[in-house]
Amino acid sequence: MSPKPLNALKEAISNRVIVELKGGREFRGTLDGYDIHMNLVLKEAEELQNGEVVGKVETTIVRGDNVIYISP
Amino acid sequence: MSPKPLNALKEAISNRVIVELKGGREFRGTLDGYDIHMNLVLKEAEELQNGEVVGKVETTIVRGDNVIYISP
Amino acid sequence: MSPKPLNALKEAISNRVIVELKGGREFRGTLDGYDIHMNLVLKEAEELQNGEVVGKVETTIVRGDNVIYISP
Amino acid sequence: MSPKPLNALKEAISNRVIVELKGGREFRGTLDGYDIHMNLVLKEAEELQNGEVVGKVETTIVRGDNVIYISP
Amino acid sequence: MSPKPLNALKEAISNRVIVELKGGREFRGTLDGYDIHMNLVLKEAEELQNGEVVGKVETTIVRGDNVIYISP
Amino acid sequence: MSPKPLNALKEAISNRVIVELKGGREFRGTLDGYDIHMNLVLKEAEELQNGEVVGKVETTIVRGDNVIYISP
Amino acid sequence: MSPKPLNALKEAISNRVIVELKGGREFRGTLDGYDIHMNLVLKEAEELQNGEVVGKVETTIVRGDNVIYISP
Repeated sequence: MSPKPLNALKEAISNRVIVELKGGREFRGTLDGYDIHMNLVLKEAEELQNGEVVGKVETTIVRGDNVIYISP
Repeated sequence: MSPKPLNALKEAISNRVIVELKGGREFRGTLDGYDIHMNLVLKEAEELQNGEVVGKVETTIVRGDNVIYISP
Repeated sequence: MSPKPLNALKEAISNRVIVELKGGREFRGTLDGYDIHMNLVLKEAEELQNGEVVGKVETTIVRGDNVIYISP
Repeated sequence: MSPKPLNALKEAISNRVIVELKGGREFRGTLDGYDIHMNLVLKEAEELQNGEVVGKVETTIVRGDNVIYISP
Repeated sequence: MSPKPLNALKEAISNRVIVELKGGREFRGTLDGYDIHMNLVLKEAEELQNGEVVGKVETTIVRGDNVIYISP
Repeated sequence: MSPKPLNALKEAISNRVIVELKGGREFRGTLDGYDIHMNLVLKEAEELQNGEVVGKVETTIVRGDNVIYISP
Repeated sequence: MSPKPLNALKEAISNRVIVELKGGREFRGTLDGYDIHMNLVLKEAEELQNGEVVGKVETTIVRGDNVIYISP
């Protein structure tokens, strides 16, 4: 069977991912959790705006409706 | 099991959190409650706009659909 | 147990609250009712736009999806 | 018990109300009906844009997601 | 009992209606059908943009989330 | 009984339709399928932007929330 | 029976597809999975912005609400 999007997220757990958000925002971090809304928990994450690093956080919980795509 | 986003919020209860909202708004306060929509209750919170403190409130109830991310 | 956002609203009933809405709009009034969508009933409310009072109403019913936050 | 928003709408039936909509639009008319989405039926209504009357209608059915607030 | 918005639509079936849409668009046509989302079927409809007629169609199916109001 | 919007779509199957989308986009093609969200399958479709043909596709699946109206 | 949009996606599995997203973004890749929200998994995908290739990824998970259309 073809992998469903949530299975692809499951496989990405503990891996570094790029999370592109609406509004020119991006996180690069370790995927630590997700749910069916694509709410995400990222660890050791860098936040970028328009391509530049603007901050680092140990943990961040992203609300799923902001997500454009997640690339493992 | 990997922590789901709501579990990560549960663990953040009583801790100081940064809440980034749509529209350049931010709150920094103590997480006092949440629900499945990511509606939040913050205590002793500072409100920031584009990085500058614009107000302080004892309690604020944030509607979840405004949230971009929450960093404990 | 940590107070959930709707409990925090319940406790704010009959108190003066600040209601920040999307689009630079704000109400200051007495919270008279709410529901799970954060639809609100405010009494003796002042409406502000970008910080200036633009009107006063005895009662207003605010549709919840406009709410950013409510501060008792 | 505190009045819920829909009860407040029920009490406003047959009264003149101001309905503020997103996008600078406003209706002033007699509330003739509503439902749980805040879809509204207004009678003998004036439509205003940015404060100026731009039209009058005998009946109008407003889709609830456009509503910011309703003031009886 | 006060007419609910969908009843008001039911009564407007086969009548000419003005349908104001988001984005400065408007249809004037004969209401031929609707559903609970306010999806509409219009017959012999004129499309207007910012007040000017830009086209005529025999039938059009409008997705409800674009509707601001419907005036019979 | 008045035709409901989805029935009107059913009758349009295999016919050429104009699909107006948000953001100045338009498709003209043969309606090959739809569902309750107004997700659409179009065959032999031309894509237009602001009235000019910008591409042709054999098949395209349009997500319903982009649809303004469909004219058979 | 006419193919429903999700069936059309099913048939596109393992094929190269063009995915047009809101905000001038586009992916071209191999469709590896989807769900009822039109969340997508793409493999060996190129990302384009306003028509220019801006990146390549082995796998990407696109949140369905960003999708305008998918062309196999």
